Amino acid sequence: MFSHVKDLQFEAKPDGPDAAFARRLQEILGGKWGEMTVANQYLFQGWNCRLPGKYKDLLLDVGTEEMGHVEMIATMITRLLDNAPLSLGEAAEENPMVGVIYGGSNPAHFIHGGGGALPVDSAGVPWNGAFLTASGNLMADFQLNATAEAQGRLQVARLFHMTDDPGVKQMLRFLLARDTMHQNMWLAAVEQLKEDGLEELPVPDAFPDSAELTEQFGYTYLDFSDGSDASEGRWATGSAPDGRGRFRYDGSPRAHAPEPVLPPGDPRLYSTNPAATRGPGNKTANKPS
Amino acid sequence: MFSHVKDLQFEAKPDGPDAAFARRLQEILGGKWGEMTVANQYLFQGWNCRLPGKYKDLLLDVGTEEMGHVEMIATMITRLLDNAPLSLGEAAEENPMVGVIYGGSNPAHFIHGGGGALPVDSAGVPWNGAFLTASGNLMADFQLNATAEAQGRLQVARLFHMTDDPGVKQMLRFLLARDTMHQNMWLAAVEQLKEDGLEELPVPDAFPDSAELTEQFGYTYLDFSDGSDASEGRWATGSAPDGRGRFRYDGSPRAHAPEPVLPPGDPRLYSTNPAATRGPGNKTANKPS
Amino acid sequence: MFSHVKDLQFEAKPDGPDAAFARRLQEILGGKWGEMTVANQYLFQGWNCRLPGKYKDLLLDVGTEEMGHVEMIATMITRLLDNAPLSLGEAAEENPMVGVIYGGSNPAHFIHGGGGALPVDSAGVPWNGAFLTASGNLMADFQLNATAEAQGRLQVARLFHMTDDPGVKQMLRFLLARDTMHQNMWLAAVEQLKEDGLEELPVPDAFPDSAELTEQFGYTYLDFSDGSDASEGRWATGSAPDGRGRFRYDGSPRAHAPEPVLPPGDPRLYSTNPAATRGPGNKTANKPS
Amino acid sequence: MFSHVKDLQFEAKPDGPDAAFARRLQEILGGKWGEMTVANQYLFQGWNCRLPGKYKDLLLDVGTEEMGHVEMIATMITRLLDNAPLSLGEAAEENPMVGVIYGGSNPAHFIHGGGGALPVDSAGVPWNGAFLTASGNLMADFQLNATAEAQGRLQVARLFHMTDDPGVKQMLRFLLARDTMHQNMWLAAVEQLKEDGLEELPVPDAFPDSAELTEQFGYTYLDFSDGSDASEGRWATGSAPDGRGRFRYDGSPRAHAPEPVLPPGDPRLYSTNPAATRGPGNKTANKPS
Amino acid sequence: MFSHVKDLQFEAKPDGPDAAFARRLQEILGGKWGEMTVANQYLFQGWNCRLPGKYKDLLLDVGTEEMGHVEMIATMITRLLDNAPLSLGEAAEENPMVGVIYGGSNPAHFIHGGGGALPVDSAGVPWNGAFLTASGNLMADFQLNATAEAQGRLQVARLFHMTDDPGVKQMLRFLLARDTMHQNMWLAAVEQLKEDGLEELPVPDAFPDSAELTEQFGYTYLDFSDGSDASEGRWATGSAPDGRGRFRYDGSPRAHAPEPVLPPGDPRLYSTNPAATRGPGNKTANKPS
Amino acid sequence: MFSHVKDLQFEAKPDGPDAAFARRLQEILGGKWGEMTVANQYLFQGWNCRLPGKYKDLLLDVGTEEMGHVEMIATMITRLLDNAPLSLGEAAEENPMVGVIYGGSNPAHFIHGGGGALPVDSAGVPWNGAFLTASGNLMADFQLNATAEAQGRLQVARLFHMTDDPGVKQMLRFLLARDTMHQNMWLAAVEQLKEDGLEELPVPDAFPDSAELTEQFGYTYLDFSDGSDASEGRWATGSAPDGRGRFRYDGSPRAHAPEPVLPPGDPRLYSTNPAATRGPGNKTANKPS
Repeated sequence: MFSHVKDLQFEAKPDGPDAAFARRLQEILGGKWGEMTVANQYLFQGWNCRLPGKYKDLLLDVGTEEMGHVEMIATMITRLLDNAPLSLGEAAEENPMVGVIYGGSNPAHFIHGGGGALPVDSAGVPWNGAFLTASGNLMADFQLNATAEAQGRLQVARLFHMTDDPGVKQMLRFLLARDTMHQNMWLAAVEQLKEDGLEELPVPDAFPDSAELTEQFGYTYLDFSDGSDASEGRWATGSAPDGRGRFRYDGSPRAHAPEPVLPPGDPRLYSTNPAATRGPGNKTANKPS
Repeated sequence: MFSHVKDLQFEAKPDGPDAAFARRLQEILGGKWGEMTVANQYLFQGWNCRLPGKYKDLLLDVGTEEMGHVEMIATMITRLLDNAPLSLGEAAEENPMVGVIYGGSNPAHFIHGGGGALPVDSAGVPWNGAFLTASGNLMADFQLNATAEAQGRLQVARLFHMTDDPGVKQMLRFLLARDTMHQNMWLAAVEQLKEDGLEELPVPDAFPDSAELTEQFGYTYLDFSDGSDASEGRWATGSAPDGRGRFRYDGSPRAHAPEPVLPPGDPRLYSTNPAATRGPGNKTANKPS
Repeated sequence: MFSHVKDLQFEAKPDGPDAAFARRLQEILGGKWGEMTVANQYLFQGWNCRLPGKYKDLLLDVGTEEMGHVEMIATMITRLLDNAPLSLGEAAEENPMVGVIYGGSNPAHFIHGGGGALPVDSAGVPWNGAFLTASGNLMADFQLNATAEAQGRLQVARLFHMTDDPGVKQMLRFLLARDTMHQNMWLAAVEQLKEDGLEELPVPDAFPDSAELTEQFGYTYLDFSDGSDASEGRWATGSAPDGRGRFRYDGSPRAHAPEPVLPPGDPRLYSTNPAATRGPGNKTANKPS
Repeated sequence: MFSHVKDLQFEAKPDGPDAAFARRLQEILGGKWGEMTVANQYLFQGWNCRLPGKYKDLLLDVGTEEMGHVEMIATMITRLLDNAPLSLGEAAEENPMVGVIYGGSNPAHFIHGGGGALPVDSAGVPWNGAFLTASGNLMADFQLNATAEAQGRLQVARLFHMTDDPGVKQMLRFLLARDTMHQNMWLAAVEQLKEDGLEELPVPDAFPDSAELTEQFGYTYLDFSDGSDASEGRWATGSAPDGRGRFRYDGSPRAHAPEPVLPPGDPRLYSTNPAATRGPGNKTANKPS
Repeated sequence: MFSHVKDLQFEAKPDGPDAAFARRLQEILGGKWGEMTVANQYLFQGWNCRLPGKYKDLLLDVGTEEMGHVEMIATMITRLLDNAPLSLGEAAEENPMVGVIYGGSNPAHFIHGGGGALPVDSAGVPWNGAFLTASGNLMADFQLNATAEAQGRLQVARLFHMTDDPGVKQMLRFLLARDTMHQNMWLAAVEQLKEDGLEELPVPDAFPDSAELTEQFGYTYLDFSDGSDASEGRWATGSAPDGRGRFRYDGSPRAHAPEPVLPPGDPRLYSTNPAATRGPGNKTANKPS
Repeated sequence: MFSHVKDLQFEAKPDGPDAAFARRLQEILGGKWGEMTVANQYLFQGWNCRLPGKYKDLLLDVGTEEMGHVEMIATMITRLLDNAPLSLGEAAEENPMVGVIYGGSNPAHFIHGGGGALPVDSAGVPWNGAFLTASGNLMADFQLNATAEAQGRLQVARLFHMTDDPGVKQMLRFLLARDTMHQNMWLAAVEQLKEDGLEELPVPDAFPDSAELTEQFGYTYLDFSDGSDASEGRWATGSAPDGRGRFRYDGSPRAHAPEPVLPPGDPRLYSTNPAATRGPGNKTANKPS
């Protein structure tokens, strides 16, 4: 059972409207890794949790917080939608910026939503229940939750570079911090499960080793693409993370084909890039304003 | 570019047909965590990977292997669909098992697929591209891949208890072993990324700390559901997994409400259960045949 | 911002498990007219509401209550899923009831959900954001809310006849009563909007009459199917409900074709039936147990 | 069985092409509340209607008319798609308007549809069958139909302000008038059902009162969001619209939190706004050209 | 513009109800190749057709006929849904057939549709607009229409073996005949387009040969799967169907791998089978009753 | 089982980035008729094929090639996404072209994909499994494959006119040639099936004529739209393509209604146009650069 408090968890108003950015902000509201996903995912995991106590409490605490994030972002989007150009005529008669907003906004925000947020992603595709998983196995689900927060923080970090509005940026700063907390939290929860003897790797740990073909296939790296660069990674030799076996590489060195090489991407997208060796020292390289 | 070899990666035939189980097996073919998802996820991650070398090779190797798993499961489903009852009349005139199969099978397997596998899940809902993510950030994606293999292995383990067919079980044993390998592999890849200085927690690590509201919100556990059981977990006190901050619990002890308590579930579903404290010793508790 | 209280709004436990009914109950959790729809619909309407005061408060009050109904039904479904037959073998070896349950349940409840509720409908299709509308126009939306509660109460009434479990029936009795309240409430809200001078029929009332082709097309009944039975209804003659025009019938009497006539349906489905002229007196005709 | 007449129900041609508006017009063709929805909704309700006579005739009459509206809008969209810029080069070399159109149009109109209308909404998401409901209960469905026409007329009124093309505006004037008729019609049909003794509030009226928990929950307003503004509405005190009970408010006065207040929206979107108290006198406030 | 005649194009009533078959019949109503698809596909192609005269007339004629088939099948489904078991209790207390129907039916038919047809396929997934294509190129679309009728007739033929009800079979006989006509018709229309000089192979014929890499890649069979059986087909040597080039096989003989071989399927599914060499003489092999 | 070779089947790099065209190129990657569809369609048809030998080999050969096309297009899209404007500010400060790109690109390419390709169409809607069909009947499926290649080549030809980038055009030239080959190939395969006595028209040929209502309905053209232009086509008189019957026209001449006439479309869209009578001589009419 829930109760609602009218003030937002963190109050931030945009300095001005921007319907094109409002469309983009929908990704973290109604996209696959948006707040609707994490809110519902943690709540379903909590409701279905058969283990009373700290884990169930954790899931319901955080799922409830995320509902408040849905509210914050919906409110921000609604505020950003004001004063958008409704017609080509309006878009053309003013400065070019207005034309760019007209082209870059989501028409359904106006025709369907009347200037309010919608439960859709940045392309306008509706959120759906398949975005969430509540498998009943807490280890599998806590790992998923950790990556959901990583994907979510990544998207917020990218959006941070897509606007100059101080009010919007302030809200994103808050969301980044909560995603930092929640990434850490789910990783700590994975550790807690191990400490409590509830689950081990590989998931599900209770399935008997003898029933799988571990001997031949359980720790062997099979190479299905030419080139043998992959043999150099930690996943091909040495002890496996589950502590139960050692990796074995099954592949023969093959000549490198002239593979397509992609250039480094925009550092503000935080994709993993060739030149992007990171450390405390070079963080300023892509310092946002 | 791909080439195809006609023999299956692992050959296993069902001892007999079972159209009701064929429907269930669709979950690991075309469901959210099925082989179509991981095959396409790793390939898209590989194609979009801007870092040549071992990571790109790894993604393309394993994505290609998973395409072969799609093939194996599709072939198995097609074999299981033979001799199913097509009509109520047929279902009723034979033994009750046939009626159970009629009710429990997916009619589209026959009407649409002509007795062959479909790119759908166990409910008959088509696979879709939103099931996969290729974010460009390898840490976020390797974490996702690790949980995908955990969710996948969990589903295979559950399916293992839903059939008595030795041929089918043999294929599942193989898939369990590969999922064991792949869970370990992606976790090792997460470690490798850290070792190579390419990414740290929280993702994305290159986003400057100063731009987020870390101080107030970055390591604070906020409690939005009554009861304070969650304060007992590793996520509420002590050092955070990213090594950059310490958790702080922000909540006051509240009386426990009479919350709904669920009974332990079927151990063959490998959900986290109250009585399920596991260890090497009690694995035999739910030993499958 | 939300907070969560762990006890359910209304506590009811099933007397026994029934996985086939659990699948059916999903319709009012994750179906088009289920609790996820009304909860999110009212909340989005509330967040986007530009009118502070009683209307915004109303929307947020009731949307928050409906979140608690999602929780109640999810909990009930999880409880109903216990002890279901996992395999054809199990289904066949016990009494025929078990075979019926096996055929009539949703396999994803076990393979994907591990014995827990899913955000899907009774066919297993995921809930999606297009199920809800928040148009910004409160009259259009309150009318939608009224029909949502009518469709919802209709579905609960039908489900009431699909189970004999007293605990489940008790929860349905509660939901029926809340749907009674909410139907009445949204219809009262429609009246309130008129009283407050905020909206009139036809929606949107502020669009100027002179800009539409009212004269010729605004109150004329056009007959596109043969037979002229429709000319006998209140929609073809007399004053229109908006009080601004009089209906006019535009059609010529045509001979009746031998149209398909359907038999009366099962009264427990509460469809509108030939023989179903209702009144206080004949309510007992389809009195549920 | 249907027959088709080639001329449109109402002929209107655009004065000139506008591919960006064509995309927007798709909302009332293939969007949730578009003509494909109402056409199919009324036809399915009619086909499934178990009551021969005026209701069935009404449903089939109007469903058939709406098929003709699908045709009108599809034809208009196809006409609007001519002469659109196909490439960035074309878009850049002409006046800025062309760039705005390029950015604001739906590429699938050209790549997939070859310059013709598609069964999608304004974001390009395909129409789907879940948009319609035919529940068998005519009261629930007529209420839905009334709101469908209200939502539809609202969208047409919004689109009216998104174009300056006189031909397009003429078609919209026609559609507004038909939506006026149809809103009135379905509300009259709701009244007719009551007069004919076929259904009463709350839907379904035939479900016995004694089987629901009416006493405690059937007329009680429960307050789940802070603030008690909602206690001032007609839904909290006085007689309920079904004439069977009196509303009761269950909540205690609470201090107002500093809730987010949204500014009034663009009056051309016809959302309910603080300053929008309407009456015959102030209609001219947002008089469209 | 359409008008509606109330009698069905072909009248057939089921001898008795069968809710499990009703679910299966949904495939040809709301499935990918069902009547909703062909009706809307031909109408959209007709509305978007820029060539007045016989082609446009053809598309609108047949699209309109298919709307009548939607009506026929919806009516049949509604009739088949009567007297279905609503609960597990009912299903268990009667003969086993009733249990089979309970398990094999679609619960949404009752909970959502109140005993009436739904716009969904046999799994319960809603029909969607992506099922249809209207590309503007009549050759590409007439080929699609021909295969749509082939896929449709195939599904009707399969359904013919899934029921023993004479009334249902009579309707299917009618649909089979219309699909025979329509397959022939679209293939004749392909020929007509060529005769009229409007389109040639390959589609689109007006794209200049010189702009594609025809020389090297336009008629070469590339072999990407081991085994060279494919070199024996007409697609690898000889003149190509477009009369513009000759096929060339580019592959080297490779040893056959031990590929998976599937057994012949049920002949009543009309899949292409090893033993299924057909001719007028052996048609009786799978003569339906 | 598959293996992967790192070099692309055909190497082509864009001369420069263009995020707006990248969005458009998604249509042939993840749209209904894109490479993901044909790759998976042919592979599923091959895996489910019960006839070993040249047909199965053909399906697996070509399905495997198409996987390489998915890779080529994904790589091209990723290359085109570089240097796109991320924010309104960036878009506005540079030349107008940048604003056009901002408005015309897909925000999810950056927020979700980090500058990489996504499994979606040009509107951003995810690819789904319902796009493919593997019916088991090779005639029905080869016809579908032929139209899939025609629809695909049509889309590539349209895209050819939507860019001026020589590198992109070079890749499209390659794809056009392969689509030429594949159109021819599937049509040859249709002929081969007939020659091998495996299938005849109408599909499925093994369904006994006597069981359908051929006499009355099998070769009769029924006219449901006014005007009798359709009576002039080959589908209304003369011998039917299946060689088993003669077409009969069932309709009476009716006066032409004033039907909507559409202007000829842009010839670069290759839709069938009034003035587009084609032949070797007038190909240059719409010669692309």
